[in-house]
Amino acid sequence: MRHLISADQLEREDIERLCDMADKIRENPQKFSKILSGKIVATLFYEPSTRTRLSFESAIMRLGGRIISTENASENSSGKKGETVSDTIRIVQSYADAIVIRHSDENSAENAVKVAEVPIINAGSGKNEHPTQALLDIYTFRSSKGHIDGLSVAMLGDLMYGRTSHSLVKLLGLYDDITIYELSDERLRLPEEYVTLMKSKGVKHVRCGSFDDIPRDVDVFYQTRVQKERMGEQADKLRTFDLTTSIMNKFSDDSIIMHPLPRNDEISIELDEDKRAMFFEQAKNGLYARMALLYEILFLG
Amino acid sequence: MRHLISADQLEREDIERLCDMADKIRENPQKFSKILSGKIVATLFYEPSTRTRLSFESAIMRLGGRIISTENASENSSGKKGETVSDTIRIVQSYADAIVIRHSDENSAENAVKVAEVPIINAGSGKNEHPTQALLDIYTFRSSKGHIDGLSVAMLGDLMYGRTSHSLVKLLGLYDDITIYELSDERLRLPEEYVTLMKSKGVKHVRCGSFDDIPRDVDVFYQTRVQKERMGEQADKLRTFDLTTSIMNKFSDDSIIMHPLPRNDEISIELDEDKRAMFFEQAKNGLYARMALLYEILFLG
Amino acid sequence: MRHLISADQLEREDIERLCDMADKIRENPQKFSKILSGKIVATLFYEPSTRTRLSFESAIMRLGGRIISTENASENSSGKKGETVSDTIRIVQSYADAIVIRHSDENSAENAVKVAEVPIINAGSGKNEHPTQALLDIYTFRSSKGHIDGLSVAMLGDLMYGRTSHSLVKLLGLYDDITIYELSDERLRLPEEYVTLMKSKGVKHVRCGSFDDIPRDVDVFYQTRVQKERMGEQADKLRTFDLTTSIMNKFSDDSIIMHPLPRNDEISIELDEDKRAMFFEQAKNGLYARMALLYEILFLG
Repeated sequence: MRHLISADQLEREDIERLCDMADKIRENPQKFSKILSGKIVATLFYEPSTRTRLSFESAIMRLGGRIISTENASENSSGKKGETVSDTIRIVQSYADAIVIRHSDENSAENAVKVAEVPIINAGSGKNEHPTQALLDIYTFRSSKGHIDGLSVAMLGDLMYGRTSHSLVKLLGLYDDITIYELSDERLRLPEEYVTLMKSKGVKHVRCGSFDDIPRDVDVFYQTRVQKERMGEQADKLRTFDLTTSIMNKFSDDSIIMHPLPRNDEISIELDEDKRAMFFEQAKNGLYARMALLYEILFLG
Repeated sequence: MRHLISADQLEREDIERLCDMADKIRENPQKFSKILSGKIVATLFYEPSTRTRLSFESAIMRLGGRIISTENASENSSGKKGETVSDTIRIVQSYADAIVIRHSDENSAENAVKVAEVPIINAGSGKNEHPTQALLDIYTFRSSKGHIDGLSVAMLGDLMYGRTSHSLVKLLGLYDDITIYELSDERLRLPEEYVTLMKSKGVKHVRCGSFDDIPRDVDVFYQTRVQKERMGEQADKLRTFDLTTSIMNKFSDDSIIMHPLPRNDEISIELDEDKRAMFFEQAKNGLYARMALLYEILFLG
Repeated sequence: MRHLISADQLEREDIERLCDMADKIRENPQKFSKILSGKIVATLFYEPSTRTRLSFESAIMRLGGRIISTENASENSSGKKGETVSDTIRIVQSYADAIVIRHSDENSAENAVKVAEVPIINAGSGKNEHPTQALLDIYTFRSSKGHIDGLSVAMLGDLMYGRTSHSLVKLLGLYDDITIYELSDERLRLPEEYVTLMKSKGVKHVRCGSFDDIPRDVDVFYQTRVQKERMGEQADKLRTFDLTTSIMNKFSDDSIIMHPLPRNDEISIELDEDKRAMFFEQAKNGLYARMALLYEILFLG
């Protein structure tokens, strides 16, 4: 793998290999602490982020690499002077051995790759792609449940605009006997292309009207944030499906609760102490998944 | 000490020990240049800062540590998406071995500690606490005057909203035979709780109406900036007590002039060359005081 | 050289020496990878920048140094609280071994030097000075054309407000037999002081009305961006002289096209694949030119 731009690039064996490597790094981080020695990675963030940027930067440093960074490239960089992403990439690759980029434009990462002479990693582009989030989500399934084939996943919240859901659906499509229960306001449902994708991949897709339509022994709740700022006046009329203790009491003790974070009210804080809450663990898994990816792209590559 | 959240946590012996360590590091920085090797510290700044953030980051690097940072967390991070400080801390602690945080909310650092699995250092919270500033102020008293018991300190400027004054009053309360001369507009006086605190700790507190009420041999002038942006229309009518050469000519050659900085006009630049001017030295002392604190919390702790 | 504030400081022999060193570093970067070991450099950017800040930071790291940085000092630092640049410098020099500064104020770097106890490098001040850009421009002339004496340079775009053009004219004045063809809207011409300077230095200066006035065998096109945001309502009426394939077909295959970047439309992207396009190479040269400068100021100095 030279670049990671889209979840489409990943096959089952890639994911297995990256998850195995994430486990190895977690068990013995010291062993990997010098592999990026002498390397510089640029993190170019055109959209706000804490988790993704800081976890990439921590991952780079823990592998011995160094960082040049812009936390607000839209305002503080030549992007403000009208420079295209392609031009920025052509320049920054003179200064860095790889580039991690987040941008609101759907095609930003693809456009970056067209001119890139160094590896490009997509840290979120537009509303469609966030492949490293999908990777860490799958890694969390595997770590918590022990397997991915056969999983049933209830997806909640904003499945229309949330790019993490879209990348995740793509990866789940690689596995056998997956069921996705979709529970969201009708204006926030998975776009048609993802429904078609699930069908073509043999994923069972069930649209639900309430929590009652989700079976008691569902394996995963994958909650997401409704980006109300996108919804304008309609925001108040949206049906949301917040997870609370009383809701979760109806479901199996073996289920897990995930969320790409940040959250607002869609997972009640009383659930933080529930042993099924896996969302902070999930964020931590992101560190190891990203270390594995950097290992593969920058050290092996 | 696991965290440093409030000046209330510090006792005389803590301050002595930290100041001794700051002196040791200043004398032989090379000896300490690897103690945080392999450690990553996150600096999360939700309010603007140069001095505090850069001095922490320099301190961390000079001890061999590495940094992940956000200089404008309010705008560029998940804070903007409505994430609570507690959630941010829970995530960032997966990426870093300690967290330095500045936030406008009074309780931000306390809330951080409630969920923290790594050390938290408060770099300024709301209008009440800035414990590392108070520590470096006391360290500057000790370095410049040789002692703290018995000192007389004229506090000027904004004592109502200025968190550095509040943390400093708390620490001065630990020492014997302290006198505080308060000279400020009546709308900018020390809040009642600090007056009560001084009384209970045996600090002599004198409200002054002009420089004439401050004795010639006062040991320290502690000037602070009036944050006019907080005062609205009243800002123009505020009495300020700017330090100038002609004012300072009335006072002892052995006094020192301090200021947590940044300053506007409240210390005339003609005083920069006065040998009593200690405010840039004070900023430098911040580096060593913070190195001592990081040594204790991250290396010994 | 202790500081680099203005292109005026550089003589031919300085430029030769720095370009020689840039070549040496480019040939064997490994050899120089530890020379700033233990050093911390502060990058203080009060104006947006990608290229300049990231290239300085990459240069510092590739020499083994470490960085404390503020990418938006106007908003996120004590500058917002009204602190002067002089005060900021006095403080930051307690934390760093050198300071790289970009600021909109013409005199910012000069004012910094007045109080500086560590080296100051001007990364762009006001509309007059950008000495490291001029240095890398000259380095690009030398690398691409093999010599500087005798060069003819067509300067296009905004020569009134563009500080890179101003610093470049100063450096070209040090060489023999230079011709500058100026092609720009009459409201964007080189300011009179630079015309006088060229005259006094024996630079041949030709004002052109169209591309037809530029000889076929001109050596260099130095295109610059028109900062339309500065021009208000007049922006639409400005004559621009964009470079396109059809324009460039009229000129020699041995010419080179340069641009300090970022660009908007003034160099057509179809020219990116033209072998004469040297603007991305020019950006890369900036890395080595800045490494050479840091070597001289921080390692030799």
